[in-house]
Formats: sequence, structure tokens, C-alpha cells
Amino acid sequence: MSRYGSQFGPDITFLGVPRCDLDDPASFAGADVVIVGAPFDGGTSHRPGTRFGPSAIRQACYLAHDGSRPSLALRVDGLTDLRVLDAGDVEMPPGEIERALAAVERAVTAVAAAGAIPVVLGGDHSIALPDVTGVANHHGHGRVSVLHFDAHADTGDIEFGSLYGHGQPMRRLIESGAARGDRFLQIGLRGYWPGPETLDWMAARGLRSYEMTEIVTRGLDACLDEAMALAVDDCDGVFLSVDVDVVDPGMAPGTGTPEPGGLTSRQLLDAVRRICLELPVVGVDVVEVSPPYDVAEVTAYLGNRVVLEALSALARRRADARDGTTWDPARPLLDGRG
Amino acid sequence: MSRYGSQFGPDITFLGVPRCDLDDPASFAGADVVIVGAPFDGGTSHRPGTRFGPSAIRQACYLAHDGSRPSLALRVDGLTDLRVLDAGDVEMPPGEIERALAAVERAVTAVAAAGAIPVVLGGDHSIALPDVTGVANHHGHGRVSVLHFDAHADTGDIEFGSLYGHGQPMRRLIESGAARGDRFLQIGLRGYWPGPETLDWMAARGLRSYEMTEIVTRGLDACLDEAMALAVDDCDGVFLSVDVDVVDPGMAPGTGTPEPGGLTSRQLLDAVRRICLELPVVGVDVVEVSPPYDVAEVTAYLGNRVVLEALSALARRRADARDGTTWDPARPLLDGRG
Amino acid sequence: MSRYGSQFGPDITFLGVPRCDLDDPASFAGADVVIVGAPFDGGTSHRPGTRFGPSAIRQACYLAHDGSRPSLALRVDGLTDLRVLDAGDVEMPPGEIERALAAVERAVTAVAAAGAIPVVLGGDHSIALPDVTGVANHHGHGRVSVLHFDAHADTGDIEFGSLYGHGQPMRRLIESGAARGDRFLQIGLRGYWPGPETLDWMAARGLRSYEMTEIVTRGLDACLDEAMALAVDDCDGVFLSVDVDVVDPGMAPGTGTPEPGGLTSRQLLDAVRRICLELPVVGVDVVEVSPPYDVAEVTAYLGNRVVLEALSALARRRADARDGTTWDPARPLLDGRG
Amino acid sequence: MSRYGSQFGPDITFLGVPRCDLDDPASFAGADVVIVGAPFDGGTSHRPGTRFGPSAIRQACYLAHDGSRPSLALRVDGLTDLRVLDAGDVEMPPGEIERALAAVERAVTAVAAAGAIPVVLGGDHSIALPDVTGVANHHGHGRVSVLHFDAHADTGDIEFGSLYGHGQPMRRLIESGAARGDRFLQIGLRGYWPGPETLDWMAARGLRSYEMTEIVTRGLDACLDEAMALAVDDCDGVFLSVDVDVVDPGMAPGTGTPEPGGLTSRQLLDAVRRICLELPVVGVDVVEVSPPYDVAEVTAYLGNRVVLEALSALARRRADARDGTTWDPARPLLDGRG
Amino acid sequence: MSRYGSQFGPDITFLGVPRCDLDDPASFAGADVVIVGAPFDGGTSHRPGTRFGPSAIRQACYLAHDGSRPSLALRVDGLTDLRVLDAGDVEMPPGEIERALAAVERAVTAVAAAGAIPVVLGGDHSIALPDVTGVANHHGHGRVSVLHFDAHADTGDIEFGSLYGHGQPMRRLIESGAARGDRFLQIGLRGYWPGPETLDWMAARGLRSYEMTEIVTRGLDACLDEAMALAVDDCDGVFLSVDVDVVDPGMAPGTGTPEPGGLTSRQLLDAVRRICLELPVVGVDVVEVSPPYDVAEVTAYLGNRVVLEALSALARRRADARDGTTWDPARPLLDGRG
Amino acid sequence: MSRYGSQFGPDITFLGVPRCDLDDPASFAGADVVIVGAPFDGGTSHRPGTRFGPSAIRQACYLAHDGSRPSLALRVDGLTDLRVLDAGDVEMPPGEIERALAAVERAVTAVAAAGAIPVVLGGDHSIALPDVTGVANHHGHGRVSVLHFDAHADTGDIEFGSLYGHGQPMRRLIESGAARGDRFLQIGLRGYWPGPETLDWMAARGLRSYEMTEIVTRGLDACLDEAMALAVDDCDGVFLSVDVDVVDPGMAPGTGTPEPGGLTSRQLLDAVRRICLELPVVGVDVVEVSPPYDVAEVTAYLGNRVVLEALSALARRRADARDGTTWDPARPLLDGRG
Repeated sequence: MSRYGSQFGPDITFLGVPRCDLDDPASFAGADVVIVGAPFDGGTSHRPGTRFGPSAIRQACYLAHDGSRPSLALRVDGLTDLRVLDAGDVEMPPGEIERALAAVERAVTAVAAAGAIPVVLGGDHSIALPDVTGVANHHGHGRVSVLHFDAHADTGDIEFGSLYGHGQPMRRLIESGAARGDRFLQIGLRGYWPGPETLDWMAARGLRSYEMTEIVTRGLDACLDEAMALAVDDCDGVFLSVDVDVVDPGMAPGTGTPEPGGLTSRQLLDAVRRICLELPVVGVDVVEVSPPYDVAEVTAYLGNRVVLEALSALARRRADARDGTTWDPARPLLDGRG
Repeated sequence: MSRYGSQFGPDITFLGVPRCDLDDPASFAGADVVIVGAPFDGGTSHRPGTRFGPSAIRQACYLAHDGSRPSLALRVDGLTDLRVLDAGDVEMPPGEIERALAAVERAVTAVAAAGAIPVVLGGDHSIALPDVTGVANHHGHGRVSVLHFDAHADTGDIEFGSLYGHGQPMRRLIESGAARGDRFLQIGLRGYWPGPETLDWMAARGLRSYEMTEIVTRGLDACLDEAMALAVDDCDGVFLSVDVDVVDPGMAPGTGTPEPGGLTSRQLLDAVRRICLELPVVGVDVVEVSPPYDVAEVTAYLGNRVVLEALSALARRRADARDGTTWDPARPLLDGRG
Repeated sequence: MSRYGSQFGPDITFLGVPRCDLDDPASFAGADVVIVGAPFDGGTSHRPGTRFGPSAIRQACYLAHDGSRPSLALRVDGLTDLRVLDAGDVEMPPGEIERALAAVERAVTAVAAAGAIPVVLGGDHSIALPDVTGVANHHGHGRVSVLHFDAHADTGDIEFGSLYGHGQPMRRLIESGAARGDRFLQIGLRGYWPGPETLDWMAARGLRSYEMTEIVTRGLDACLDEAMALAVDDCDGVFLSVDVDVVDPGMAPGTGTPEPGGLTSRQLLDAVRRICLELPVVGVDVVEVSPPYDVAEVTAYLGNRVVLEALSALARRRADARDGTTWDPARPLLDGRG
Repeated sequence: MSRYGSQFGPDITFLGVPRCDLDDPASFAGADVVIVGAPFDGGTSHRPGTRFGPSAIRQACYLAHDGSRPSLALRVDGLTDLRVLDAGDVEMPPGEIERALAAVERAVTAVAAAGAIPVVLGGDHSIALPDVTGVANHHGHGRVSVLHFDAHADTGDIEFGSLYGHGQPMRRLIESGAARGDRFLQIGLRGYWPGPETLDWMAARGLRSYEMTEIVTRGLDACLDEAMALAVDDCDGVFLSVDVDVVDPGMAPGTGTPEPGGLTSRQLLDAVRRICLELPVVGVDVVEVSPPYDVAEVTAYLGNRVVLEALSALARRRADARDGTTWDPARPLLDGRG
Repeated sequence: MSRYGSQFGPDITFLGVPRCDLDDPASFAGADVVIVGAPFDGGTSHRPGTRFGPSAIRQACYLAHDGSRPSLALRVDGLTDLRVLDAGDVEMPPGEIERALAAVERAVTAVAAAGAIPVVLGGDHSIALPDVTGVANHHGHGRVSVLHFDAHADTGDIEFGSLYGHGQPMRRLIESGAARGDRFLQIGLRGYWPGPETLDWMAARGLRSYEMTEIVTRGLDACLDEAMALAVDDCDGVFLSVDVDVVDPGMAPGTGTPEPGGLTSRQLLDAVRRICLELPVVGVDVVEVSPPYDVAEVTAYLGNRVVLEALSALARRRADARDGTTWDPARPLLDGRG
Repeated sequence: MSRYGSQFGPDITFLGVPRCDLDDPASFAGADVVIVGAPFDGGTSHRPGTRFGPSAIRQACYLAHDGSRPSLALRVDGLTDLRVLDAGDVEMPPGEIERALAAVERAVTAVAAAGAIPVVLGGDHSIALPDVTGVANHHGHGRVSVLHFDAHADTGDIEFGSLYGHGQPMRRLIESGAARGDRFLQIGLRGYWPGPETLDWMAARGLRSYEMTEIVTRGLDACLDEAMALAVDDCDGVFLSVDVDVVDPGMAPGTGTPEPGGLTSRQLLDAVRRICLELPVVGVDVVEVSPPYDVAEVTAYLGNRVVLEALSALARRRADARDGTTWDPARPLLDGRG
């Protein structure tokens, strides 16, 4: 077996779920979700450290690492109601970005081809390129919309003379046709990048980008309603890409390019839940958690909970589909129990 | 005199209020409030450090330690309008939880018996067991409702083979009859613990637990209205137990079992104020402040301000009762002055 | 040339804008904005460190230090659409507060006299005295209102036997007549200082102080509407003074006198934007960023973004005036582009 | 299988060595060394955190977790030349010290009885009581001398009313007869504890304690010569107990009761090597690594390297015995290679 | 009573020794040692924070704050064998250096006049001016030599236009005649300050300054022999001034102007012990401990132990003088006990 | 002009020395030393962050950034007695190691070709490949010996499938012929890497590697005597490569691959001084300072002082050669002054 394990630290799995080996298709046959680590910060333009993101996200929890997490809110166990496996980390040489990204694309493609949802733990956001491409390789280029939570558009062209990096994956995805510009929904943008030329490029490709001013003015729910409707218009699946820097750096300091004025952790968790509950999600990544800049692990915990929230909602969605039920957010925790 | 002082560090009092000695009843006769330190982390299931909580909460303030704190918002001085004393820390051997908790129960019982409101500074949440029991020893078992702010239900049964710990006090309280299950109001729960079996137990005992989803959906005020009405239905007093982890770990990192997606500090302070202003509070504890994981003391400051907010509101409640006045939150700060 | 550069560290400018020299008036003739560092913590009553504030605020950014920052939200570049220069730091001996503040007053007066808007980077809040006085020296004593974001009123009288310090500048300003008490608008106050005597003094001078309780009850927008209307009633200009501790310490830990229960970063940024967009701002200071207590630079980033938000809004205001346009906060980011 | 794994975090082994299960004797039959985690800080008198010590010591390494570590200096691989297994953590309820220590004694006794050397990763120093007792249960009470590196004598009597804690294990060991007082060799003591009464008790039992003054005056090597000779005089084996606070806190800050003026890391590593190379070591513990107080993991790294140095020297000792060779510390690294 | 207490934090005493009040001479009549806090960083040229030094030094200990510390090495209790009192902090307005230093001079003069040894806890090194002057006011200007441990000569002339600051006290002392240049012994200097002009001034006044190169080349003991002989040549007493930055910043990071390549903590403790044991010390200060830059309190602990080492050696010196004994550093800890 | 400035942060120079532009040869014609930043961590196998090393090393100093640093010990000013310029950072895309290293080689070659000594600030140790190659391009391949201070041999072959990285530069240098294996002198190695195969390769190439055991046994001075003699045997110049991890991580925590048991800071500074004073040094690099893992900047300060020590010794060497003098380490600081 060639399972690589964790590239930076001991070989653990996400909260203790079972392992699988990407070189051994039988090991993940029938999986609902396969977690893949992408421990890479070679695409970072500023503070590094996301190479330790997969390890930190996998273990940031005070409960036993027993492969089970019953959600209070959703009344499902996202780790046991689904069949969730962890494939370990893709080997990503930090100084060889093209080779590193290609390895991720192979891994994600293999997972998607097996019918499972890949959940990729970054790593910097340059991995969105192979993440979405890998999913599109299976579901069809242009058939997967992207719901992208981020402070930054990540649609830069060439930086430091390179086509690849954490500021550019969305442009590469649209240029290659893996994703459609007019099904690219960005939520939480703010600050002072990119400049007008890049914004013009984005507009020309039809992206719909919700800057924080619009979100504050109209409300996050209204923006989400709109974006989620677009995401399933003439697309077969949705890729959810969560850059933890969409949250205000005061609440999520452990990241590389912090931009004040973001969402709260609560808002992000609720949005992730809603998307995975209501839309046909076919892939997820959670990126830009940088442990060396974190404080008391709060950002790693947030990354862990974004993953759990997504998995719990996916499980809830399946349960509701199976049982014909509808989840009610106003229902009291203990209602119907005892 | 046998005053123990501070178990972990120099012998100080909460912001400089006068001392008393629990072994010398005369020293706290006539007190309105007696502060008691419970420097214990032997009940913690994950990150320790709350043994330094009492010391940190007592001193986290940039103003002089002069035993006076005039509240801008409430126009009273919670430390001088009431007679507030500090009894120092209860001696709590970290490795002997039963003996440690018994010592707290004796202390709290003595304070309550003297007609004062005990304000216990934790320490991990295992101290809620002796805190509430001590108050109930005076006011009557089952006669005191509990308003419990927390990310966690703390209703676990046996953990690590022990009946005692910071995940279990609420169960022990209800089992013993010190507190009634159907007057146990929990606010801020979230995450992935406890599992269905424990939730069933809670439901069977009639707890009312407000998970964050319900709070976000209905609004915190609406949930508080409901919980506060229940708290005074057929009970003579209210115990307010504040686990600082009810606040989002991004704003309150210095705690042991952080769960993303919580309240803001502002919400917690407003809720504590409202409860102490409107309800017959007979005991308070503030727990789970863990200084080794704190950042720039922000969590210790929050703990200190939760105590001050409670004391200020208690003083305001008495002043309003005495003077026939009603506090108006919309009144401008300087209105009626000058 | 006598340009002092940075007193504490290498000589850099705010995000790479061009330099000027306050001893050489030609070097800033025609400037729209001159940034001045006031690296001083000799007025701090508790945690020091703001001497490193100017350096931290100048460089807290993950983008290139190229003197350009196109605002996504406002569609202007606050650093290039305006002529923005950086004069370096005023030399401020930490143990000689009167001499240090006098040097700041000279610097700010010179900038205002040249027709530019001084943007002063603190330093502790004692610099508000020379900042506002310097502006009033040009625009007329009593002709400039003050919009003051802070957890603290900063209207103390004598502390540690001194008339000067970060708890007293607002009193000195009103006593001297540089600012009118009844055009002093304070937003975000909370906590336990000052006491009744000082509050009475404030009321007698006609200050309008919005404590957080009023802000939560009425809404920040309603309070701002009122304050902003007052600010331009019989005044020719507005000075905006932003103490970063107006934000909750959970989101902005790097400051000296943290008071839980504050605004969010998002609220502060939006308020600063609105004020600079709608009012005739003639001076700005951003104070109390204390790097030694900061975490992953989040508070320095916030200080940097407060400055950028102010400059962007100033540029937007001029562009709208020039072009007869009106900025619309609900307009989508990419609307009208491409 | 009942392998507990890691009590606080994911289930990993020391640098990737194979696992065993203490409840399954076959799983460690034939082992040379069995690593046991004792994640306990319930015996700590001051700063806690050593419950995370086993996990931190196991993984503090920048190399791959592949179960192999060829020592440059000793020309052996301590992890593969010996058969080294990791049994995971003993379950130790933090608030129940007697039950927790009893569990460790059972584990260590089982390992020793199987003919393996137990290497126990603390945890606070209260575990020395079950560690040495467990070894003595197999080798004979009074037949194992103790070489004890520490800033503190750990010979206190009753503290906080308890017989057990990290300041008392050595007294309990001598009182019980598990270890002989006159074969108890303490190295590195300093500071202001214990007082004369306890020192008299120690002298009466014949302990030989090397305070830092004697070590500086005579030289560490001379003291070690003397202590090591005593250790094998009428004893069959040696237990090596290393409290990381023997090293100066400036170099090893991550510990609970730091006492300035200690050894350097280099001195400790050399002493551990020498003891394991020259003496019949039958048990080892490495205690008091407290990750929450650590800095850039330097103390955890030191703990990891103390373990590796011990294992490497044990392997070298066996190789030299087998091959009739003698290790020469002055031999150049590459001598004889190529 | 006018005891000021602690200016920055709660009112505590050094490890629990009794209080006295400098405004009440009876309260310290007959004292051997009076501890005085000088919480000042207004003289610091770079990183501030020493205002919290006195509080940190007073409490950095893991043992009970009981006013007793029996020294293992010296077999005395420096806190009880001597009569040691703590006068609290002198009130020092951070922005008014001249007034602040004058207050310290009054305090130290009063202590010395009462026949006690002042032990001043800094604060930055600018306090050496009033510390030594205060002692000289009693013992005679020019009659007290100075043994000065520091990375820096602190003999600068005017800085930032001021005569006072932490880089200049030694010059002011020699200029005023309070101390003689040729009885000024400096140990541990290194780095790149001051420049030739100041060095020439020092040479002209006859200072003897041991730079680290000389110390490494000749050995610290040889340098100390020489310096200590000079210190008692035609002087009646010795002032010991310890700047904690004499220790390598790797071991003592919590300071404002770190200079790599210094002594070890062990060397400093041994040197302080030797000086207080062998010379007629009449005053001590321990300065430049800056808690905001400290790590796990290691520098505060070092400051605390420097004080204890000095007090223990003073007590040992008196005991030896009284009993005709001589302390032997090679004597084993337990020798003569039991 | 194409001067790049600082890639990560504002454009500053080493302690304020003048700038030059590598694309403008006239700008550094006649320079003695040109400082070059190599802000790269794409070759790091574990903790990243060295991309911020050049910026941190340039500014880690409490003195004014005035381009002057008179050495107390060496009585020269390394920044003004030599002509020292700073070329800013080479642009190094983090994910493209081959392109990044090639850019460094061009820069170093240009500096060496101009007759100046390049002093390269890392960055991770992968830059030693272009650093030494660049110097050898001018002085002749095989004509420059290498004195290499490091905990690690850095002679690995292929890692993560790449020939380039911070564990391999020394192998690449010897393979290419840029440096001779038998003039490669390694000082400070320790720990558990590389394995026997690589050690055999090293021995076969004739490297002389001083592991810490040999250094402790024989003394650092004796090892240096031997290594320095070899370095100038049949070589024309010496390249000094200093990996800051040669120092014990307890004293230099801010690095990526810490290995306990290293040199002290004092030892490293003295060794660097001696080498630059006694040998014909033609190039220097200082690598592996990783600010995100640093504490109170102590490792950055050490890096800064290593550079200054080297420059001061180079200046002293030239002055001695010019004046026929010999520097005496035992000479008192003030001897011959005044």
C-alpha cells in the first residue's frame, strides 16, 4: 500500500474516521465522502503555514477522536450516517507548485470518479484549481458551479511571474473551462484587491461577486438566496470552496492574508449548513487555515467545524430525501425526545 | 484566622474589595455578595488552566484596584452600592475532585446561609455542582432554577470512569434533586456533544435547552423572554451559571473546550445584565476562563466584566426597588446629569 | 533635510506612499492628505506599546507596498486619487509628555495650514489633544466638531498628578476652547469609567455620548444619524478620532485598556466610511494600536484598514462632488464593469 | 482490543513506532522497550498542561514519522535496532489521582514483567511513584536505584492535604520500600524548596542530592561519576527519571514549576546518553513537559530528544556488548565511513 | 496611611513579605531590607513594558506567597532571617520622567536613611539614577561603588533631547558626583553601543567595563575578582545594579533592548550571590524585566530569583559574620543534616 | 530602475545602509559588501516562515537605523568602515524553486563579479546552492571552501521527488563541482539525520563534519583550529554559511527544524568573528531565521548580530592588514581610550 499519511506530522485521520488509500480504489469504493489533505503553502503570497492546515483541521476538537460527531442542530451524525474516509495527504513538494497541484487533481478526480464527494483540506487557495478541476473531470467541465466564500476574488493573472498561486485559481478555472464564469458565485469579498483590470475581466466572464458592503446592505440571507438560485441554474452540481479568511480576522486570526471586516464564524457556519442542506454539493474545500498564526487553535477549530457542518448537512439532506422530512431551524433541541 | 488567600498566586481580592474569611462568620455578616474562588481544573476533559481563572478574573482590569466600579450604563456602583466581600480561594487539591467539590459546597452553603449571594469564580464547570447545591442547601432543594449559559449541556453521565467532571455537573444536580430538570434553562448550546442518549435523558427531565440555531432563528431576546419566565415559575430564586465558552472562541479564546459559532461578548453581557436586573438571582458562577490559552487577557477581561455586569445589575435592581424607578436602556448616558 | 523617519524601526511610509518632510513646506505643498506618526505611549495608564503603533499601522498589509489601494467597495484609490504623503514620525521622547505633545501640535498645525488633511497615527490617545488643537489652529478654535469613537470618554481631569495622558485629552480640548463641548460626539463608550463627577462635567459642557447600551437599543445607524447631524451644525469641519478599543477586545486585542462589549470591526469600518463620505472631515487620528499585545497583527491590520477606509471615502466624496455622482452601497461589485 | 490510544488528541505512536496493547500481552511479547503515555496533570501544584505532554513528546520532530531514527553520534538506530513499541496512553482521570496512578502502576508492571524497559512519557512527576514501583514490582523492591534529574527534590510529605502529587513521589517511593533512600541520586536541585525539615528527612534516608552549586563547583562530570557508581552498588538496575525542569527555564520554558539556573539542554542530553550507555537501565520516565507554556515546541523537542538519546544509548550499549566494541565520543562523525 | 500599593495591578508584596508605608517611618523602622517598586518605562528607548516589572518580579514563583524562601544552596531564609518589608510602588507618571525619578530618589533615600538596604524593582534602567543617588544621599556621595551588570554601558549623554532615560543614568550619576567613575564596574557589555565619543568619556572618568570578549577570554571569575577588589577600594558600600539584559536574550527574552551573546542565567545568579556574600552591599536594583515580551514568565522568574539570591546571600553574610562560619560551595546539599 | 525592494513588506535596508540596484552595476561599483535578501521558504521540509527572514534580520535592532554600528569588541564600524550596500530582495516565487534559486545565483554572481562580498539573508538553506555557486562563478569552481555551521548536513539526495530543497544544497554543490567535498567543513551537526547511506556519500567525498559530541569532547576551539586550517589549504577563499539552527533551539526558537543540544549564541558569535577575522571570506549567508516561530524577536536579533559580527570582523581584518595591528581579545574595552 502506498498511503502517504500525513506529510507534516503523524499519520492521523479526520477525527478518527477510517483510512483509505487513493492508490487502492477498493479501499474507498462505496464511500460517500473522502477527505484529502493538501498540505501546501507554496502558492501563498504572504504569510505561509497552511501546509500544517490539514493536520490542524483534522484534530482540532476536544472530543474523542472516535469517528463520530452527532450534530445537536441537525440530528444526524455526519461521520457515521455517511461513509466518510480519510485518504491522508497528497504529497506536495512546497517548491514545485505545478507538480503539487497536478497530484491534487489526480487525487480529487479519483475520488469523484468513485462517486464520492471529495472534501479537500488546504493548504492555500491555489488548490482550488485542482479541486474544482478534479470534480469537473468527473461531472463535466462547465457543469459544476462554484460557491466561493472568501475575502479575495482569487482571480489574478500572473504573480511573481507565475500562473499559479493562491491569488489566481479562479481565473485558471474559468480560462480552462472547468468552471463557468457565470456560475461562479463569490461571497464576502472586501478590501483593496484586485484592481480594476481584473474586476473588468471578472465582469466580462459574468461572475457574481458579493462584496461585504452589499452583504451588509442587503443582508447575507438575501444574497445567499440569489447566489444559491444561480448555482443550480443549468449546472449539475455545486462545489463549495471556503477560504477561512472570509471570517473577520479578529475571530479567525490564523490565516495568511487577513482582511478586516468579514463575516462572523456563526454566519459562515450557517451559510455552509444551508448550502449543503439545500444544494447538490459535489465537492468541498476548506483552505487557508495557517496554524503558525493561529491563537489557541481557534481558526483550526473553525476549519474543523466548517467540515463537520458540511458533512452533517449532507447527511441531513440525504436523510430528509430518504424520509421525506424537512429540517426546521426553529425546532427546540429537545423537542420530540425523551 | 484561616483565610486561605489565593491558592495559585498572591492573595488578592476582586478589584480590591474587602476580604472576609469563611471560617469567621462575623467577617461576612451583613454582606450582600461574597466572592469565592474555586481554582480547579481537575474536572476538565481537555485543555486545563482554569485553576488560574479566579486570580485572572479578579485582576483583569486597567483601572485601579480600589473596590469601586461605577457602571456607565446602570448608574450604580456594583462594588460599593452593595456590600461585596471576597473570601479568597477555596483550597482545592487538583487531583482529588470529590474532596475539592465538597469544600466548595461548604463555602457556598455558608455564604448563602448568611444571606449573601455567592459569586463563585471558576475553575472548570464541575464546580456548578457544589455551587448550585450550596445555594439550594439554603433556599431549598428544587426551589432554585438554573439559567445556564454554555456551549455544552454538561449533562454527561460517567466519563473516564468518574461521576464528577466539567461535563457532568448538571446531571448530578438534577439527579440529586438540588435542581429541577424542568427549571433548568440552557442557552447557547451547539456542536456535537452530547449524543442522543443523553439528550433523551435531558428531555425526559424536562430541560429547556436553546441551541444556537434556535437562538439565531428566533432571536436571543425571544429565547430569553421565554427562559426567564420559566425560571421564576414556581421557584424562589435563580442561579446564573456562565460558562465563558458560550461566547464564540474567536472572541474568547482562553477556555478549554472551544466551540465555534457562539454569542458575541456584547450579547452575553446584555443577557447577564437583564437576568440580574429582572430576576431574583441568588447565586452566580463564572467558569472556564483558562488563562494559559488566553490572548492579551481578553477572556479574563470578559470574565471580570461578566461579574461586574451581574453585580451592577443586582445593585440597580435593589436601587429601583428602593426608589420605585425603572432603568431605561435607551436613555442617553449624560441625560439628567450636569 | 530633517525628515525624522520612523522613531522606532526603519523609515517606511504608509503602504509605500511618497515621503515629505515637515521642515520643508515645499515637500507637502498641494498635498490632500499628510500622514504623521505619533509614536508615543507615555500617556498610557495601563498597557504600553502604542509607540510601535505608527510603524505597525503603516505596514500591516499583505499587498505590495506600492502606494496604491483601489477600494473594491468605493471604486476609488484612496492613495492615488488623492495626493497622500507620509511625513514620518514626530520625535516624541517617551518620558516628556508636554514636549512630545507640543511637537505633534506643531506638525499637525503645519499640515492643516498647508490645506491638507492630517491623518495622525498613534500612539496613545493623549495625542488627540495636539491633533485636534493643530487642526483648530487653522480652522478656528471652536469651529471643528469631534466625532470620537472610543470605549472611554477620555475626559478625566488630573491623573497621577498630571494634566496630560490618554484619559484626559478631550477635557483639555474643551477647556482650552479648541473644541466645543456641545459638538463633541462620543460613540461606543462603555464600562466603569469615568465616575459621576466627570460625567457631570461632561453633561455640563453639553457632550453627546453614546454608550453601548443606547447603541444596541437604538441601533448604531440611528445614533450615527443624530451625531452626524450635530457634527455639522454650526461647525466648519469635523475631526474624526478613532480609538481602536471601540471595537470589542475579542476582535482587537492589541490595545492597552480593553473593555469587553464593543463594536465589531465591520461596524467600525462602515461608520468611518460613512463619516468621511458624508461629512467635511478636516482631520483624522487612529490611536491605541499596541503591537506587543496584538495577535497575528489583527489589530494593526484593523488600524491600517481604518486609515484606508477613511482615505477611500474622502476620495469617493471628492469624486462624487466632482462628477455629480452618488455612491450606492447596494450596487453589486461588478455592476457596470466588463 | 482495548488499546486506549491517546487520551488527549489523535491516537499516534512515538515517531511512528508500532503499536501494542497492554491488555494483550502477545502484542508486546519480546519487546525491548514499551513506551507508555501518562497524560496527567492532576498532581501539579502550579501550572498544569502536562496532560498534553505524551502527545507532544511523541510527535515533536521535523522528520517523517517512520519509526526510525539513526543517531549521528551513536551510530545506531534506537527505534529499529531495539524492538520499540508504543502502548498508547494510560487512561488517567485528571481529578482522581489515586486511581490514575494505580493505572500507571499496572501498566508499568506489565511492561517490566514482560522483560521490556518501560519508557513513560509524563505527565507531571507524580507518575514517578507508579513508574518506579512498577519496575520494582518486577525487579524487586529496593533492588532498583533511581537517577533523578530535577530542579526539585520531590520529597514533600502532605500537600493540599494529599499524599500524592508532583512534589511527593520520591518520599512515597522510599517510604514504601520500592526504592532505597541511599540509592536515590538527585541531580540539578536548586532554589527554595523543600525546607529544612524535609531536607533532614532526606538526609536521614541517605539520599545523595547534587544541588547546582555543587555541580558548578565540582563539574557535572565529577558529580555524575560519583552518582553513577553509587547507582550500581548493590542494586540490580537503574531507573532514570528526567524532569525537564532540570534544564534552565530559559531553554525549556514549557514546564510547570520553572526554576532559573539549571543545566543546558546539551548537558542533559549528554548525561542521559552516558547513563543509558554505562548503566543497566531498567526504566525511564520523562516528565513535566507542559505544551501550553511551551514556545515553538522547544521543550517538547527536548523531551523527544531525551527519549531518543536514551533509546539510542540503550541500543549502543547492547551493540557494544554484542560486538565487544567501545563507543568513542571523540571519533569524527564520518570516520570509518565512505 | 498613604501606601500607594501597586500602580499597575493589585497591591501585592514580594512573595508575601509584610508591607510597610514609606510615608510612615515607623512602619519600616528596624528593617534590614525594604523592597520598592519603580514601575516605569518612560525612559525606554525601544520596547516598553517594564512598568509591569515590579508586579511580575514580586509574584513570579510557583511556591506559596508566604514570605519565606529557604535557600537550598545557602542554608538561610532570605525573607525571614532578615527583616524584609515591601513598600509597594512609587507613583511614577509614565510621561513625566523627572518627577517620576525624583519620587524614587525620595523613597530610596528614606529607606537608606532608616538603615535598611533598598532593593528597587524596575522599571527601566533610568531608575538607577535615583537608586544610587538615594543610597549615596545617606552613605555619602562618592562613597558607594557601583557593580553594574548590563549589556549596555548606559552612559549616553542626551537622547531624544532629554538628559534622562534608560541609556543615560550612569553618566548622570558620575556627573553629579553621586558615584565615582573610577569605582564604576560594568560587567557584560557587548554589541554596538555606545560610540567612540562616549567610550572616551567613560575612559576619562576611569570606568572599568568588562565587555563579553574579555569575560570569555579571561573567565567571568577572574573579571569578578578584579572588579570586586576595586569596588571596596576606598568606598564604604557597594550598589549592585542588575539589568536582566546582561543575560542572553535567548534565555531572558522579556526585556526591551536585547543583545545576543550574553551570560547564562546560572552565571548571573552565581555572580549576584558572590557579590552579596563577599561585599558590603548597601543597595540593589533589578531592572528591565518587560513582561509583555516575556515567554512563560521565564524572565520574570529570573528577576525574582536574582532578588532572592541577593537576599539569601545577604542573610548568609550576616549569619557567617555572626557565627564565624564560612559558606562552602562544594558542600553537598544534605551534608550535616538528618 | 528595477530595484525590487522587499518582497514581503516595506522596502528597507539592513539597519539603514544605502541601497543599490542589482540591475544597475554602477550602483554597487566599489562596494565592499552587498547585502542580498533571499526571502524563500519553498525549500523547507517542515516549518516555513523564512520568507520573512530577510526583513526580520534587516531590522532586528533597538538602535537607530542609521547605517552605522561601531563594534565595542572590535573597535571598528562594520557598516561605515566598509562600503556596505543593500540590494533588496531577489524576487523568489515560493512555489517555483528552480526559478527562484536561479535568480539568486544571478544576483550573487553579479555581486561577486563586482569584487564585493555578497552577504545573503535567507530564506531557507536551499539558497546555499546559488549562494556558493554564485561566488564560485567568480572565484572559480572548486577554489572556495565552505565553512558550514548547522545542526544538519544538508547533503540529502532527492526529497519529495525534488533535487532542490533545504536538505540538499550541499550535495548539489559538491556534485556540480562548485565546491570541493574535501574542503567542506561542517560544524554543529547532531540528531538523527541523515542516515548511513548519505553519511557514506559524505565520507566518500571527503567532507569533515564536526558533530556536537566531538565538539563537546574536544572543545569548539580545537575543532575550529582544525577546520580553519583545512579551509585555506589549496583554496582561494572561504564561504561562511550560518544556519541559525546550529544554536540550541532553547536560545534560537525561530527556525524550522530545531534540534536540541546546540551551541550557545555566544559560541556562534565568537566563531563567526574568528573566521571573518582570520580567513579570506568571500561570501556569507545567514539562513533559517523563521519569524513566525520566533519569540520576542530573539532569533531575528541573533541573525542580525551574526551579520554585524561578520561585517565588523571583516572590517577589523582590513584595518589590521592596513595598519599592521593585531586585535587582542583580552584587551579591556576602555584600554587606550579617554
